Amino acid sequence: MSKRAAGGADKGPAIDLSTLSSRPIVIERVTPEIDHGRFAVKRCEGDTLTVGAAIFAEGHGALSAALLLRRAGETDWQEYPMASVNHGLALWEGSAPLPDIGRWDYTIEAWRDEWTSWRSDTGKKVDAGQEVSLELVEGRALVEAAQARAKGDDATYLKTVLKGFDADPAAAAQTTLLMSPELQGVMARWPDRTQAVRYDLVLPLVVDPERAAFAAWYEMFPRSQGTEPGRWGTFEDCIRRLPEVRAMGFDVLYFVPIHPIGTTHRKGKNNSLVAGPHEPGSPYAIGAPEGGHMAIHPELGTLEDFERLVRSANHMGMEVALDIAIQCSPDHPWITEHPEWFKFRPDGTIKYAENPPKKYQDIVNVEFFGPHQYELWEELRQVFEFWIGHGVTIFRVDNPHTKPVPFWEWVIRTTKDEHPYVQFLAEAFTRPPMMKMLAKVGYTQSYSYFTWRNRKHELQEYLTELTQAECVEYMRPNFFANTPDILPEFLQRGGRPAFMIRAVLAATLAGVYGIYNGFELCENDAVPGKEEYNNSEKYEFKVWDWDRPGHIKDLIAKLNHIRQDNPALRRFEALRFYECDSDDVLFYGKMTAERDNMVFVLCTTNPFDGRHVWMRFPLAEMGLEPDQAFEVEDLLTGDRHLWTGEWHHYYLNPQTNPAAVFRVVPWRAVDYRNPSL
Amino acid sequence: MSKRAAGGADKGPAIDLSTLSSRPIVIERVTPEIDHGRFAVKRCEGDTLTVGAAIFAEGHGALSAALLLRRAGETDWQEYPMASVNHGLALWEGSAPLPDIGRWDYTIEAWRDEWTSWRSDTGKKVDAGQEVSLELVEGRALVEAAQARAKGDDATYLKTVLKGFDADPAAAAQTTLLMSPELQGVMARWPDRTQAVRYDLVLPLVVDPERAAFAAWYEMFPRSQGTEPGRWGTFEDCIRRLPEVRAMGFDVLYFVPIHPIGTTHRKGKNNSLVAGPHEPGSPYAIGAPEGGHMAIHPELGTLEDFERLVRSANHMGMEVALDIAIQCSPDHPWITEHPEWFKFRPDGTIKYAENPPKKYQDIVNVEFFGPHQYELWEELRQVFEFWIGHGVTIFRVDNPHTKPVPFWEWVIRTTKDEHPYVQFLAEAFTRPPMMKMLAKVGYTQSYSYFTWRNRKHELQEYLTELTQAECVEYMRPNFFANTPDILPEFLQRGGRPAFMIRAVLAATLAGVYGIYNGFELCENDAVPGKEEYNNSEKYEFKVWDWDRPGHIKDLIAKLNHIRQDNPALRRFEALRFYECDSDDVLFYGKMTAERDNMVFVLCTTNPFDGRHVWMRFPLAEMGLEPDQAFEVEDLLTGDRHLWTGEWHHYYLNPQTNPAAVFRVVPWRAVDYRNPSL
Repeated sequence: MSKRAAGGADKGPAIDLSTLSSRPIVIERVTPEIDHGRFAVKRCEGDTLTVGAAIFAEGHGALSAALLLRRAGETDWQEYPMASVNHGLALWEGSAPLPDIGRWDYTIEAWRDEWTSWRSDTGKKVDAGQEVSLELVEGRALVEAAQARAKGDDATYLKTVLKGFDADPAAAAQTTLLMSPELQGVMARWPDRTQAVRYDLVLPLVVDPERAAFAAWYEMFPRSQGTEPGRWGTFEDCIRRLPEVRAMGFDVLYFVPIHPIGTTHRKGKNNSLVAGPHEPGSPYAIGAPEGGHMAIHPELGTLEDFERLVRSANHMGMEVALDIAIQCSPDHPWITEHPEWFKFRPDGTIKYAENPPKKYQDIVNVEFFGPHQYELWEELRQVFEFWIGHGVTIFRVDNPHTKPVPFWEWVIRTTKDEHPYVQFLAEAFTRPPMMKMLAKVGYTQSYSYFTWRNRKHELQEYLTELTQAECVEYMRPNFFANTPDILPEFLQRGGRPAFMIRAVLAATLAGVYGIYNGFELCENDAVPGKEEYNNSEKYEFKVWDWDRPGHIKDLIAKLNHIRQDNPALRRFEALRFYECDSDDVLFYGKMTAERDNMVFVLCTTNPFDGRHVWMRFPLAEMGLEPDQAFEVEDLLTGDRHLWTGEWHHYYLNPQTNPAAVFRVVPWRAVDYRNPSL
Repeated sequence: MSKRAAGGADKGPAIDLSTLSSRPIVIERVTPEIDHGRFAVKRCEGDTLTVGAAIFAEGHGALSAALLLRRAGETDWQEYPMASVNHGLALWEGSAPLPDIGRWDYTIEAWRDEWTSWRSDTGKKVDAGQEVSLELVEGRALVEAAQARAKGDDATYLKTVLKGFDADPAAAAQTTLLMSPELQGVMARWPDRTQAVRYDLVLPLVVDPERAAFAAWYEMFPRSQGTEPGRWGTFEDCIRRLPEVRAMGFDVLYFVPIHPIGTTHRKGKNNSLVAGPHEPGSPYAIGAPEGGHMAIHPELGTLEDFERLVRSANHMGMEVALDIAIQCSPDHPWITEHPEWFKFRPDGTIKYAENPPKKYQDIVNVEFFGPHQYELWEELRQVFEFWIGHGVTIFRVDNPHTKPVPFWEWVIRTTKDEHPYVQFLAEAFTRPPMMKMLAKVGYTQSYSYFTWRNRKHELQEYLTELTQAECVEYMRPNFFANTPDILPEFLQRGGRPAFMIRAVLAATLAGVYGIYNGFELCENDAVPGKEEYNNSEKYEFKVWDWDRPGHIKDLIAKLNHIRQDNPALRRFEALRFYECDSDDVLFYGKMTAERDNMVFVLCTTNPFDGRHVWMRFPLAEMGLEPDQAFEVEDLLTGDRHLWTGEWHHYYLNPQTNPAAVFRVVPWRAVDYRNPSL
């Protein structure tokens, strides 16, 4: 020991290790981690957060690691142990439960586990019959140091171990004492973490209510919920429709804009340039002398009526989503009260919205980076605050990709800091990187390309990306089967079977999905050659017969109740596609982590032709022996089967049963050589 | 315009946009970028750096972007234009030449291109016959603003445009003027970049000499280059061997440690525990009373002799690589002079190196994180400095994965800051993440798993990862075909054909590759059941007959000269595998970016059985018409063929021609309908 002092004091820190990019213990390849922690990972209340990382250091010494979790803004971390799951790739994993919504932070800490290293090395030497007397002295020193750190019973226990060690100098006795599993357990609780390495980043996490990832949406135009042609439906009419919507199993009731509508350049029926005197205009041409984004169109009712509608929906178990379109009719009060929020042309007018040569004469846009940017942003934030104050918990945002990304980050962040339960759905039918970026900066859910993915290979490829690529950590696609803007060709041409097919796919592929009213009636009257509805509700009143022949309300109700009853269907990320011998038919499944609920869906994508298909059940993934029987119930028909083996046959008739939703219950495996098991 | 003033002053920055994670223009998915810019991308002198990114903003306005490059430490950037290469994915790309070695920085800047937006929108309106008089006024304002920014001829030109615009008020004339391509060219040079967005990271880049990525290494034990059995070979003997080594086409001459060797616990022949009185010991047991890591074993010669050897090698066009093994024999001077750099056990001894239950009694390790860490690290850095001072330009580092990663980052960084041409090769036969991390923190080259990849599918999978995954940006594998520690089973059992096969694979798959002397003699005498050489040079003197029958020196020389003559073979990242109908035979190729040099290799992996094979040439990738003839020369035999079409046949006999190296020269495509072309 005296030799150690020989060199005198070190010349000091010529090397500041913190300026280096690497650390004595490497922690890297952390998953999930979005853009180096710049954006938050999303989870839901009740989920488990599982974090992986490559953790390693020089040499072969043992390491320990912990996952650290805390509410954003707090200083103390909660620790959860991590364990090595792949030695060759140095991968570790740890999990933490997420009990509550809001913003959270997580990171990783790792340290050298000197006791485990000692125990492993010494064990190998003992096994090889090598002399270990020096090792025993070194082991004792480690126990003594841990004893000094330990508290309570552990401290007492370690003291006893040291006494026992000193009492019997026989190597065999000391070895037995120090190698005991009990001691290993206690030593693991009192490591020397003075040289522990913390991962350089604190990673953000947003925990949302479960409905952020699992809900069925129903979209409507309140003004078309009435019963008299050519007249405004009202919030009162909407309330009358709630029981029917809830009976179909929907969780979210989504209203297109409910604000006063401008008269300047008002659009008429079928988007014509001139509106007749009694035509209502597009609800997206927001703002009139009666008010703008914080007002209600007088014909729909009052703010009190709206609140009553929200309360009625809530009482039935539904939340209300409101459409927010940041654009103004030329009659919006902001234009006269805050001209500084708009950009004027050399002739003193404001440019109307355009995508040259297309023109949207009934709306103008605000100027997000204008000279009064800060007041404008604050006013827009107040719009969200206003509707939250009147019971709205979800905002469906129109065309967010035409507004600046930082605005969304700011408005969503500040709104959710106050109201962490609030959700934002981005209607961004745009290029994939922008769609993903809006999800990264905070959107709870995202519209998707689902309506345009209709063939088997398209759906498999798209869903595999959505569920298996990194975006699954932050982007939750909301699979709308139709929208007021999109009546896809598949529905136009495929008729009722097409509606049934798309309902099954939306409800079972996605976590969140939605329909726009009329879908349940298989409404498919289109403007020829376009995806637009003919006589669209966007430009006129409608009166619907909600029970008209050919509707598929029963199927939709059944699907929504199947979703409620089967926890596997809540797991979007668990979706996997399996083999099936038809290019028209999809076969896919979801299971709970414990495999106590397993649902498989067989669904045709051909609305015209019947298909005999063979599908292959993934027995190993299902935890089944190759010869183990399993019960299969088609939840849409109630038919039950008892099957064994991988491949099974089914017949799908698009008119009657375009799909089957199988719940699988394994029968107990019996080992016939040992039947008592 | 007066309306703009109506709102008074903005209430000010309630929103600090710089605290947000997103920017008004998104720049993301930048490639190459290692761990968010934490570690440097590697390139070689004369390379082009091509940088990609997703760049987009809200709406459909035009953007512009530039790649910015500068020497590390400088403040001014050199700009290179970026262009959109994939609109759907918003991908942009730009390239910059890299004229010089050293550290560089790069990043990206993007800005809104108002003129291009105006020009595109206005053009569409004109084409649709819409009225554009207001647009013309707005366009003029943009030209006027650009004129104020412009300098020189461009300023004059823009002034002329404005005059012309004002002189003729006819819309048609003004439109023609403003839409002119000349004006577009000038406007593009004077954009308004006051709101430009800079990518948040400055990304590091290391530019090495070309030999860092393309060189052939020859490894030797200087003491075994003599001619008298049982006697030390000397540097003088090494000098005598230089012409032969250079004639084989090698670029780097690599010496195992040349330092004094300890006597305590010296290992004898075949790693025996006790050495006889005349046995030389392992050169890796470094240090004796004569000196340590900065001394030369007296039997090899003097420091002057060493310098002469280095100069001789340099004169022939070879660089010298020296082995650095940070470990000490128990007789190393550091132990008495700096006991504070070692960890002593309770009995006052230093633990010798071990991997329980294996023991390495002839060496002890330094304590990297001991109380005198800083002095130790500095002393180790001086070791590198010392040998650089005596002509060494490359260090092959022994077992770097058992030393702390931050030490390597620091020592390589500080050494290369002074001597940017110096290279470090990591001998880290360890887990993939550590191997990659050592490359990330600065190692110029890395040993690889090549010796253990012998079958077709293994090689294809491994090389595809090395050349196509992210690691290609920072890790340069050095494919040693054998080492003093590794005589792989394939060479032990496969005999001369196996050596020929592995020579072809190493030389044509990798950029840098090497052999340890004896390989060219097909030396395959192994310790039974191990990968160790029998009577290894590590523990004794050898005298080799460098012309002994069965050697493959001609093949090696031919391969090295083929490498020199064909620029395609310098492009490790360009390696692609192609179809071939045998599971034993690899077919792969490399081309220059301009496709003016194309080399394809057909190589068996079966040292015993001849193979008739059909290989498929990738005509489209080669820029050939389906019916275009191409000349194929087998550079190993000189045979020439004139082929047309994809599939061609060859026969490989492992005894005589286990491989073919084809240089392909397309014959001019003739259009018979238009023969003048």
